Amino acid sequence: MSSFWRSRLDIAIFGQSHAPGIGMTLDGIPAGETIDMERLQAFLKRRAPGRFPWSTPRKEEDIPEFICGLVNDKTCGAPITAIIRNTNTRSVDYAQHADIPRPGHADYTAHVKYDGHQDVAGGGHFSGRLTAALCVAGGICLQILERRGVTIGAHIETIAGCADRPFDPVSVDAPTLKSLWEKDLPTVEDLAAGKMIEEIGRVRALGDSLGGSIECAVVGLPAGLGNPIFGGMENRISSLAFGVPAVKGIEFGTGFGAASLWGSEHNDPFYMDGNAVKTRTNNHGGILGGITTGMPLIFRVAIKPTPSIAIEQQSVSLSKGEPDTLAVKGRHDPCIVPRAVPCIEAVAAIAILDAMLDN
Amino acid sequence: MSSFWRSRLDIAIFGQSHAPGIGMTLDGIPAGETIDMERLQAFLKRRAPGRFPWSTPRKEEDIPEFICGLVNDKTCGAPITAIIRNTNTRSVDYAQHADIPRPGHADYTAHVKYDGHQDVAGGGHFSGRLTAALCVAGGICLQILERRGVTIGAHIETIAGCADRPFDPVSVDAPTLKSLWEKDLPTVEDLAAGKMIEEIGRVRALGDSLGGSIECAVVGLPAGLGNPIFGGMENRISSLAFGVPAVKGIEFGTGFGAASLWGSEHNDPFYMDGNAVKTRTNNHGGILGGITTGMPLIFRVAIKPTPSIAIEQQSVSLSKGEPDTLAVKGRHDPCIVPRAVPCIEAVAAIAILDAMLDN
Amino acid sequence: MSSFWRSRLDIAIFGQSHAPGIGMTLDGIPAGETIDMERLQAFLKRRAPGRFPWSTPRKEEDIPEFICGLVNDKTCGAPITAIIRNTNTRSVDYAQHADIPRPGHADYTAHVKYDGHQDVAGGGHFSGRLTAALCVAGGICLQILERRGVTIGAHIETIAGCADRPFDPVSVDAPTLKSLWEKDLPTVEDLAAGKMIEEIGRVRALGDSLGGSIECAVVGLPAGLGNPIFGGMENRISSLAFGVPAVKGIEFGTGFGAASLWGSEHNDPFYMDGNAVKTRTNNHGGILGGITTGMPLIFRVAIKPTPSIAIEQQSVSLSKGEPDTLAVKGRHDPCIVPRAVPCIEAVAAIAILDAMLDN
Amino acid sequence: MSSFWRSRLDIAIFGQSHAPGIGMTLDGIPAGETIDMERLQAFLKRRAPGRFPWSTPRKEEDIPEFICGLVNDKTCGAPITAIIRNTNTRSVDYAQHADIPRPGHADYTAHVKYDGHQDVAGGGHFSGRLTAALCVAGGICLQILERRGVTIGAHIETIAGCADRPFDPVSVDAPTLKSLWEKDLPTVEDLAAGKMIEEIGRVRALGDSLGGSIECAVVGLPAGLGNPIFGGMENRISSLAFGVPAVKGIEFGTGFGAASLWGSEHNDPFYMDGNAVKTRTNNHGGILGGITTGMPLIFRVAIKPTPSIAIEQQSVSLSKGEPDTLAVKGRHDPCIVPRAVPCIEAVAAIAILDAMLDN
Repeated sequence: MSSFWRSRLDIAIFGQSHAPGIGMTLDGIPAGETIDMERLQAFLKRRAPGRFPWSTPRKEEDIPEFICGLVNDKTCGAPITAIIRNTNTRSVDYAQHADIPRPGHADYTAHVKYDGHQDVAGGGHFSGRLTAALCVAGGICLQILERRGVTIGAHIETIAGCADRPFDPVSVDAPTLKSLWEKDLPTVEDLAAGKMIEEIGRVRALGDSLGGSIECAVVGLPAGLGNPIFGGMENRISSLAFGVPAVKGIEFGTGFGAASLWGSEHNDPFYMDGNAVKTRTNNHGGILGGITTGMPLIFRVAIKPTPSIAIEQQSVSLSKGEPDTLAVKGRHDPCIVPRAVPCIEAVAAIAILDAMLDN
Repeated sequence: MSSFWRSRLDIAIFGQSHAPGIGMTLDGIPAGETIDMERLQAFLKRRAPGRFPWSTPRKEEDIPEFICGLVNDKTCGAPITAIIRNTNTRSVDYAQHADIPRPGHADYTAHVKYDGHQDVAGGGHFSGRLTAALCVAGGICLQILERRGVTIGAHIETIAGCADRPFDPVSVDAPTLKSLWEKDLPTVEDLAAGKMIEEIGRVRALGDSLGGSIECAVVGLPAGLGNPIFGGMENRISSLAFGVPAVKGIEFGTGFGAASLWGSEHNDPFYMDGNAVKTRTNNHGGILGGITTGMPLIFRVAIKPTPSIAIEQQSVSLSKGEPDTLAVKGRHDPCIVPRAVPCIEAVAAIAILDAMLDN
Repeated sequence: MSSFWRSRLDIAIFGQSHAPGIGMTLDGIPAGETIDMERLQAFLKRRAPGRFPWSTPRKEEDIPEFICGLVNDKTCGAPITAIIRNTNTRSVDYAQHADIPRPGHADYTAHVKYDGHQDVAGGGHFSGRLTAALCVAGGICLQILERRGVTIGAHIETIAGCADRPFDPVSVDAPTLKSLWEKDLPTVEDLAAGKMIEEIGRVRALGDSLGGSIECAVVGLPAGLGNPIFGGMENRISSLAFGVPAVKGIEFGTGFGAASLWGSEHNDPFYMDGNAVKTRTNNHGGILGGITTGMPLIFRVAIKPTPSIAIEQQSVSLSKGEPDTLAVKGRHDPCIVPRAVPCIEAVAAIAILDAMLDN
Repeated sequence: MSSFWRSRLDIAIFGQSHAPGIGMTLDGIPAGETIDMERLQAFLKRRAPGRFPWSTPRKEEDIPEFICGLVNDKTCGAPITAIIRNTNTRSVDYAQHADIPRPGHADYTAHVKYDGHQDVAGGGHFSGRLTAALCVAGGICLQILERRGVTIGAHIETIAGCADRPFDPVSVDAPTLKSLWEKDLPTVEDLAAGKMIEEIGRVRALGDSLGGSIECAVVGLPAGLGNPIFGGMENRISSLAFGVPAVKGIEFGTGFGAASLWGSEHNDPFYMDGNAVKTRTNNHGGILGGITTGMPLIFRVAIKPTPSIAIEQQSVSLSKGEPDTLAVKGRHDPCIVPRAVPCIEAVAAIAILDAMLDN
């Protein structure tokens, strides 16, 4: 267990925020799949910084260079490796974090783990920037899934108490999901997005930050994907989702809401829809016994507020063993939830293509 | 990905509810560790059915037979395998589920996945009974961790709206956790347990069932366990936790609560406690960047209501492709949350010992 | 890396020679495959001791008990676990080996590895007896492969300078391979077997032992199995083959013989046989670039002489740090090559079914 | 199983011969290890083409660019990724091989496996060029092992019947091994190298090629590395070694020679050398039960002759399904054995550091 994820697909995520680059290797993709580079780039753009007035001003173009695995934009069966250059490297901004760890960040744990040898610049290997590499892998999987009739989309469910309308877990469909891809702040209701933007602006002015939650849906899935016990769709998805730095929780279907339901409410009755077996409700979120039922697969993740805030915070000097304070300099993204949306779609795409190929 | 979990420790979980037996193989445990069989048995008893008036009357003794890996109750470095015999096998009760899948169960997905060849009796490989094997693995890990100063305990946080007092994430300690081990219905407040018992009794009389949530804490952990990206403690724990059939959600630290906090609230300030670096609050749940901080590791899981209920439910006949109804016969556990508590402790123990040996 | 082998199929081998039992768990086998128990037992019998006058007198019946994974002898999709009871356990014969390690055995390395906690009785987890578990896994795979038109057979190529006629690497066929299954001492030429038996008898009378080599062939294979680099058929087979304790070398096709050939001799010309692409010679042993060509897959393994011999040998007392001598008591198998033959077939079967399912 | 190797260390090898680049990611290396870039480059140079008059004239500089994992040439705990640019790409030389597969090459199997989508240029992902990436990983491991007192060296044992003096398996030492690093054609006896050079020149003039064998030794190893069954040193090493395209066989210690020995000859007597347990002979090649004894670890690999030869060969046209001939154009390396030597050292280094960290 590490920066490698291994299942039917194998993925290596590498890089540090201020190293020469970041990237990924993805192995196990069938040969002969065309990758539409423009669409991939459009997908990556949704994660890239700089789309909002409040975004971190670091303007990485996030254009992956494919080192191998493709011939004329078609997969050739060999592992696919892409790197993304870091153009803003070796900043001095981060020198102090080696000694005074930022609350809520991995500065302290990396220090303990790597005995002071960690790359502290920009959060090193722990930076959210690494999710650009995850999105390259996921973006490739998304295109392949789409050709197989599977559509994935996610929206911001809440930011700071502003809630979007949740997906209808039974009738959510591909057009709804696709429409979200076009939005800067993907919400089902535009009104919700407006309120969220307002709230983010207000909190940002105070030098603070916000968390939120994301709901993701997958439609067009066949029944029968996934395996029991440790090979379930929940295990696969969550083992990837917690690779997105800010994720602190995940739930499938009704999730934590199921804790307060009765069996008669929570059980989803089966019925025949023509020749297809379906359920009338979808508390199970499209997964029973770890295996897809063919109903929309639905999950939600919790995103913690960006830990880098301008407000002065209490910390310690590791070298002196004394209390110290710090205020994170530079403009930081006051809310990374919108940028996390494609990362969650990427996670879902990888897990589902993985299970599909594993069948 | 399957019924094998592989990391620094390797685990295979095997068996079906009505096969000759179930069991587990655990590889990677250091040689020379004494396993106290009485304590292990006491741990397994917490998961076993039959402790409550409402429990399923299936009275499996759940006494593991160790096939190998131990010499005079001491680990010898070889893989440890234990089997638990199923004494109530090949029941005819389940014949109908092969054709009329129970809502909320894996009957339907297993049918699709295995093309009708699945073992339908008692839920087969998808049965909650398999968690007895997981608890054997976890119980071994718990004893080894305890010798290294790590204590794990969990309580029922909610059942049907009856809420127990949550752990204090900063000051929760080993004595508190150990005291929970002794309780049939492990809650911090005895009053909460009383209410839960009452509610379970009421719902059971109606032929219905209840879900709930469990909070687990780990104390005495060193800082520095776990790895970035896919090797984080959250990834390890969740990839195991979703192996417990009824788990539908997991969150670490403040979890979904973090979604509505501001950074200044959520960030946990560091301070020096003598020579130790600690945090004043513990929204991070003892994990930053996937790696332990040394603060209590806290997580919660959602447990869905037992799907097997006496009330008549709508389903379909798979052979006829027509609607049909079913009422699950036999007395079923109206709430498996109490029995899931040691399973969650087992999951935590495996993930933590795994990370500790991986360091 | 351990006693678990993980690929598309997952295998756990467990047990010690004098523990209550040994066994295996095999996961990833498709559901709906019938396992003919009589044929499996016949396969295991080929490995079992006691077939020869010189065999170790330990008469284990080696009858696996299937704990799970089968319903009416048909795979149900769940992991398959079988255990074999050890009937001759906790012997005192081996007590001295804890202190005076047998030359050529794992006594010493196990002592260092497990710090004196290893199970020394009968070689513990290092015993050749563990290959009975491997043969259960392999025997299952063999039956499934046969239904897919793939036949595997092996013969003793040499014992003590007595050489059998090697397979014709181009024309070796299923009937030839199957005929070997029936023979106690599987050789192509019966004359060779006679000489080998004579030589084994002679050496046994002297209290000594013999090594040998085994050649294995797989016919009926489709082209395209296996993967490049670390996923090649050679990697898969060898990573399993060295799990058979006495194996000290492996070669594919012309193998070490290729070292002294020229390219023009070693390259196998392609030709069309009807619509099929074939090669006129088969120096490549059915594998190019790690991937099967469809020609017979051929490999050979070297088996070292049984290290347990009656002759007095020089060793040391680990407790005293002084020279000491030992003579291994009891009758030991003077040549385990015949019993290793089905083990090698098992290895081939697992690797090939693994690659076939991985396609 | 694929182009990823996963154990305690994780390695991904990526690239195709004529893609923009090749490279590797190596995860699990401890933080704080200095990598001497000059020494690494010197190691890679031993594998690079162009050192001999007969070498392929493709003059790749093979200078890895480190994308991440190092800070000031020191490991920071994050995965290490290096890429090597291909400067001679998209040649038209290889167009015909897509249709007329070269005997002895992976052209045909890649065609079947990837259904015509494989990258045929320069052998694609199957090219020996990929071993440059393996050598980057191995070169890093070698430096780390050396700081821990472990030295690895290999020599050409045979080329075309010209045999070098084998290592003395008991007394081979670090200075001997290091002296081999300096030699273009690493042999123990310079006379042997002279004869080999002569023979290679002669065969090259005929448009043909030569195979050979390599012997590798590891000294300074502690006892106790490796695991039983599938985690043995033989399994680890061989699962990597067959990742070097031309390797067709591997043997440990006396290897295939053991097949004709008696137990009394093959067993290596233990004795005390001061406080250390040693063996008087070393037929076991430093490994018993998969675990190191502390004696020199010795293994040999067979290298097949370069399949690309100028002589006209028989093949088929895959599109026409008819016989056809081909003569591989361009000057090809008539003997890649010298360049394979550092690859085999790399394989040993990875496997040993892996086992060492796994302890």
